[in-house]
Amino acid sequence: MDLDFIKNELYTAVLSDVLDALGYPNQATRIPFTPCTGIGKLVGRCKTTLWADMFHKDVHPYELELKAVDSCQPGDVLIAAAQGSNRSGIFGELLATASRNRGCAGVIVHGAVRDIAKMAAMQFPVFATAKNPYDSQNRQRVIDLDVPVVIDGVTFNPGDIVMADEDGIVVIPQHVENEVLELAKQKVSAENRTRDAIKNGMKAEEAYLTFGVL
Amino acid sequence: MDLDFIKNELYTAVLSDVLDALGYPNQATRIPFTPCTGIGKLVGRCKTTLWADMFHKDVHPYELELKAVDSCQPGDVLIAAAQGSNRSGIFGELLATASRNRGCAGVIVHGAVRDIAKMAAMQFPVFATAKNPYDSQNRQRVIDLDVPVVIDGVTFNPGDIVMADEDGIVVIPQHVENEVLELAKQKVSAENRTRDAIKNGMKAEEAYLTFGVL
Amino acid sequence: MDLDFIKNELYTAVLSDVLDALGYPNQATRIPFTPCTGIGKLVGRCKTTLWADMFHKDVHPYELELKAVDSCQPGDVLIAAAQGSNRSGIFGELLATASRNRGCAGVIVHGAVRDIAKMAAMQFPVFATAKNPYDSQNRQRVIDLDVPVVIDGVTFNPGDIVMADEDGIVVIPQHVENEVLELAKQKVSAENRTRDAIKNGMKAEEAYLTFGVL
Repeated sequence: MDLDFIKNELYTAVLSDVLDALGYPNQATRIPFTPCTGIGKLVGRCKTTLWADMFHKDVHPYELELKAVDSCQPGDVLIAAAQGSNRSGIFGELLATASRNRGCAGVIVHGAVRDIAKMAAMQFPVFATAKNPYDSQNRQRVIDLDVPVVIDGVTFNPGDIVMADEDGIVVIPQHVENEVLELAKQKVSAENRTRDAIKNGMKAEEAYLTFGVL
Repeated sequence: MDLDFIKNELYTAVLSDVLDALGYPNQATRIPFTPCTGIGKLVGRCKTTLWADMFHKDVHPYELELKAVDSCQPGDVLIAAAQGSNRSGIFGELLATASRNRGCAGVIVHGAVRDIAKMAAMQFPVFATAKNPYDSQNRQRVIDLDVPVVIDGVTFNPGDIVMADEDGIVVIPQHVENEVLELAKQKVSAENRTRDAIKNGMKAEEAYLTFGVL
Repeated sequence: MDLDFIKNELYTAVLSDVLDALGYPNQATRIPFTPCTGIGKLVGRCKTTLWADMFHKDVHPYELELKAVDSCQPGDVLIAAAQGSNRSGIFGELLATASRNRGCAGVIVHGAVRDIAKMAAMQFPVFATAKNPYDSQNRQRVIDLDVPVVIDGVTFNPGDIVMADEDGIVVIPQHVENEVLELAKQKVSAENRTRDAIKNGMKAEEAYLTFGVL
């Protein structure tokens, strides 16, 4: 299943339901991510960065941030795990331009971004938990890339498929990826049948007894 | 006064002002509800549900949720009092479809919803305090319906008129309903006179002394 | 440099970067202000008001609020420092109408506003941290005007240039105003060169080494 099909046909709620059924009930974030640039859906494979706050002059400013964006591959979603820090806007117009150039599909930031108006004009998908005008230099920096990171209790492994939409963010562990996607496709059909039956006047209770999904 | 007139001519701020004047200074919520589906105004009579978090397998999944949506009456606003829990998305596309079928005008959720993109496509009014992709099954459930519920210190009684708009949510106790609506209609006129006088150059201080409203 | 030029050519991130470089690293707010009326940018000179919660009947309702709006000058941005209180909607349609009449460019409220739909219809710029339907009378009042106020650790002095946009809010101390604006204009050019080089395929690391800005 290619990333475009997944983006167009599936959504986080159905992925979460299938992961529940397979015994993975903790694959979605609950903290509110805002689609800052007005684009409400993003799918790709995790390219992870781990960030830390800092309080001294950085002798190598932006060192690993630049490596991260310059090493993006087509279809990557850049994950910035900054523990929700609001110390600076760690992702902005120039990193967005550089990562898009390498084929990056968008960015998920557990922390703050800046240059929102410019990234919106670029139509670059950005999901973040905060915003402020401060430069990251001497305030925050990447301390590791391409490592597992945890956001709101959910593990994002490099290469995992991640989807962000209006409801939230879901990560699919790679060893169940094919199974999850196939079952999600089937569940979408079952939900459509249920919805159509209800639309045609069936009561919700009867629809649930009949189709077994809600 | 019918619900359409109230929705088109009145707003939460003027209802709150009249309730203040009548000695009911605690009829509006202060916590931020988001109009998730892009529809900024909702008026109707409260159809209440009380929710609880759960941590075991539910032997009767969705039991009272289904009863609640299937027993909605035209003009009802479904109130989901879930104490702001972000454990799951307790209201989504199928419950929205079912409740709309019974004439429900929209839903107010003190807690999380999911399927936001689909409910926006349905143009179904949804005011909620959170969002996430998780199914409510085995996570949260309705434990009572058609009972008084309290959200942010405000009591929502079954049958009370409730209004949600960009400013917040106001509930009108039934025993003062007619008086509140009549006085609100009068106050709207007084506010319009004040605003027009200011627009025409009167200073705000003089306008307040002249018309007595702000 | 006039206010229109500043608004059209500059933005909070570049002002913050220049203030960093000049040794003023604490001129931007980090708490999230919402552009409630859909207008994402506001520039002007601070007209400050300091608010306090109250719990008794006000013998002079709205006294200093009215003085504040009636004494606005063209290009002023009204600053309402209410310590983030959500006790009432302290700024609404009538104060917006009155302050606009005096040439006020918009309002920044560290606290709640109301009449959001009406102020959006007026196209009046409003940045606020909360919203609710309650009247301020007997709940909050202005206790000082035209005094320095502090919001989220940032000092807003009367007459300082303030800018609010999608990223946040930045205040420029008056004694460095000309220097900041001139340097910001230069930095915008350097950023544009960097962005264009990256767009044309230069890696981010090389671009940073070449142009020295990010």
